[in-house]
Amino acid sequence: MIINNKQYRSIWMSEDKLSIEIIDQRYLPFEFIIETINSSTEMAEAIRDMRLRGAPLIGVAAAYGMYLAALEASRKPDFNQHLKFSEILLLNTRPTAVNLKWAIDRVRKEIDKARTIEEIISNVYKIAEKIADEDVENCKSIGKYGVEIIEDISLKKKGDTVNILTHCNAGALACVDYGTALSPITEAFKKGIKLRVWVDETRPRLQGKLTSWELEQLSIPNTVISDNAGGYLMQKGMVDLVIVGADRIAQSGDVANKIGTYLKALAAKDSGIPFYVAAPTSTIDFNLQTGNDIIIEKRDENEVLYAEGLLNGKIESVRLFSSKAQAENYGFDVTPHKLISGYITEKGIYASIASII
Amino acid sequence: MIINNKQYRSIWMSEDKLSIEIIDQRYLPFEFIIETINSSTEMAEAIRDMRLRGAPLIGVAAAYGMYLAALEASRKPDFNQHLKFSEILLLNTRPTAVNLKWAIDRVRKEIDKARTIEEIISNVYKIAEKIADEDVENCKSIGKYGVEIIEDISLKKKGDTVNILTHCNAGALACVDYGTALSPITEAFKKGIKLRVWVDETRPRLQGKLTSWELEQLSIPNTVISDNAGGYLMQKGMVDLVIVGADRIAQSGDVANKIGTYLKALAAKDSGIPFYVAAPTSTIDFNLQTGNDIIIEKRDENEVLYAEGLLNGKIESVRLFSSKAQAENYGFDVTPHKLISGYITEKGIYASIASII
Repeated sequence: MIINNKQYRSIWMSEDKLSIEIIDQRYLPFEFIIETINSSTEMAEAIRDMRLRGAPLIGVAAAYGMYLAALEASRKPDFNQHLKFSEILLLNTRPTAVNLKWAIDRVRKEIDKARTIEEIISNVYKIAEKIADEDVENCKSIGKYGVEIIEDISLKKKGDTVNILTHCNAGALACVDYGTALSPITEAFKKGIKLRVWVDETRPRLQGKLTSWELEQLSIPNTVISDNAGGYLMQKGMVDLVIVGADRIAQSGDVANKIGTYLKALAAKDSGIPFYVAAPTSTIDFNLQTGNDIIIEKRDENEVLYAEGLLNGKIESVRLFSSKAQAENYGFDVTPHKLISGYITEKGIYASIASII
Repeated sequence: MIINNKQYRSIWMSEDKLSIEIIDQRYLPFEFIIETINSSTEMAEAIRDMRLRGAPLIGVAAAYGMYLAALEASRKPDFNQHLKFSEILLLNTRPTAVNLKWAIDRVRKEIDKARTIEEIISNVYKIAEKIADEDVENCKSIGKYGVEIIEDISLKKKGDTVNILTHCNAGALACVDYGTALSPITEAFKKGIKLRVWVDETRPRLQGKLTSWELEQLSIPNTVISDNAGGYLMQKGMVDLVIVGADRIAQSGDVANKIGTYLKALAAKDSGIPFYVAAPTSTIDFNLQTGNDIIIEKRDENEVLYAEGLLNGKIESVRLFSSKAQAENYGFDVTPHKLISGYITEKGIYASIASII
């Protein structure tokens, strides 16, 4: 992505290869801060604190975290034990996105292949970089395939504005670059298709602020709406297409994604609007039959009870409810496959997960 | 309602009968402020600014506003013209709730009956007080009828906690007292039924803060959730019943209510959960066949782009999105009758609006 005329990924290896650099997403869109992650523990914290988030990105971050763990382990008496400890630590940062496990499993395989500590470090370095590079390519492919859906709608509308609704942030910031749901949109915009994006604000964490900011950088017309509004817009014919990302997809095609996705899928179905999930195939959990068994992360109630924003140039957190109010905060929901028109992956667009397997 | 051990209505005539007192809802739950409304113009502003809101209450407020207008008119050269001017002003404060027109029509009838200015003032005084008193009685009746639905569920659950989800605020603050959706809940709680209320925060204006605060005053267990969460809770069997208020009901039974209501109705249907609308029959627009023609209020984008809350003991407004972000802000949506289990009115519970007419 291009920020202040400079090309960025959302995560990358430092030049000396001793640390990892990330864009700290907690401060966006108000401040653009690059943070250096120096240890596997710090990486685990960064994932848990949502300094970086998005299923594809936390997979990549975990792989880089394992690389830092390997570097640390080489200076410790028990190499393998430290590596194992870091693996468990990273794996347990967030429960819902399967990409975390998928990436760590790939790293583990490379570790098990190696015979010396040096070889382990070298292997983990290579696989982490590979997972990051692959993610970039996957997101590009998702864009290339997904754009066809938007082109079709544009054609049917005789070039009239295509209105696309998205939930949460499934853009470059949720991946290494380009994004999942936002990649076809970006591609369509580059091709000159007239479009407008409805950006769900996505309480409680308001990832919509990342999406609208990303779209601004790309000069793509977009309009923020409250999470309550999408159903009305669909009823009124103001939405032509919904595209969202995914955190875990079961074999049945049920999709865990940011809380509230399910409600938009229901509304899309009710108004006959296509509802697509854009995700790399690494988001498919081949061990999972249906979405019923996906573990849904429960997060701190204060994310609901407070909101963060800019006041007099400073990021402040205001309490929205009475001091006695209690909240519950589930991070994801599961959209049943019956509500999903198709899956836009790096391998193409599929009507069902069975046809990918 | 009882606040700080004192009985309150949300609106009442001042002792000298020259002004109207309201609870200024903009500051709740952080500050409890009573405001004196001295003129019909001030009342129109109070409705437009949402110092008071809720369909039944803005009907009553408009009637009281007409009373202030009559007092003013008696000191003006053209009595009728001022009264007509105030009528139009009050009528145009907010477009969606039909109770506004319903109340003003009743006042107008009383004006037209009278022969002298004194008689007009006296008639308008009486009808305004009557509309307020009736609203209290209607809300009590809604509670009395609606409680049966909760009792049935409690019985089926063998006394286990009944989990009720509500959207926006349809409590005492949305009416003169007791509320619509919250009245059956309050009644059930008084009868000793174990229950818990899921309170949708209801962005952008966060009327959930009023609901959770009202429930706190009544010691009714409640939990705030983001607007995105309700669908997930329903899928997981954590909601037994949904009750919401209404701003306008068409003859078909389609219901305009706070934006986001439709999404919850879809989710309730998908999970087989009863979805009830609680409203006085004054909310029915007998001139309207279906919900398609209900005018949906579009409000200031800043309600979406900012959030208001407490910071260091002061109410502050923080900007949630980038300074370039744009938003659209529709205040209501329309829930089609096919998603509604029934209508809890002051006359009883009805499966359709046709059966009330």
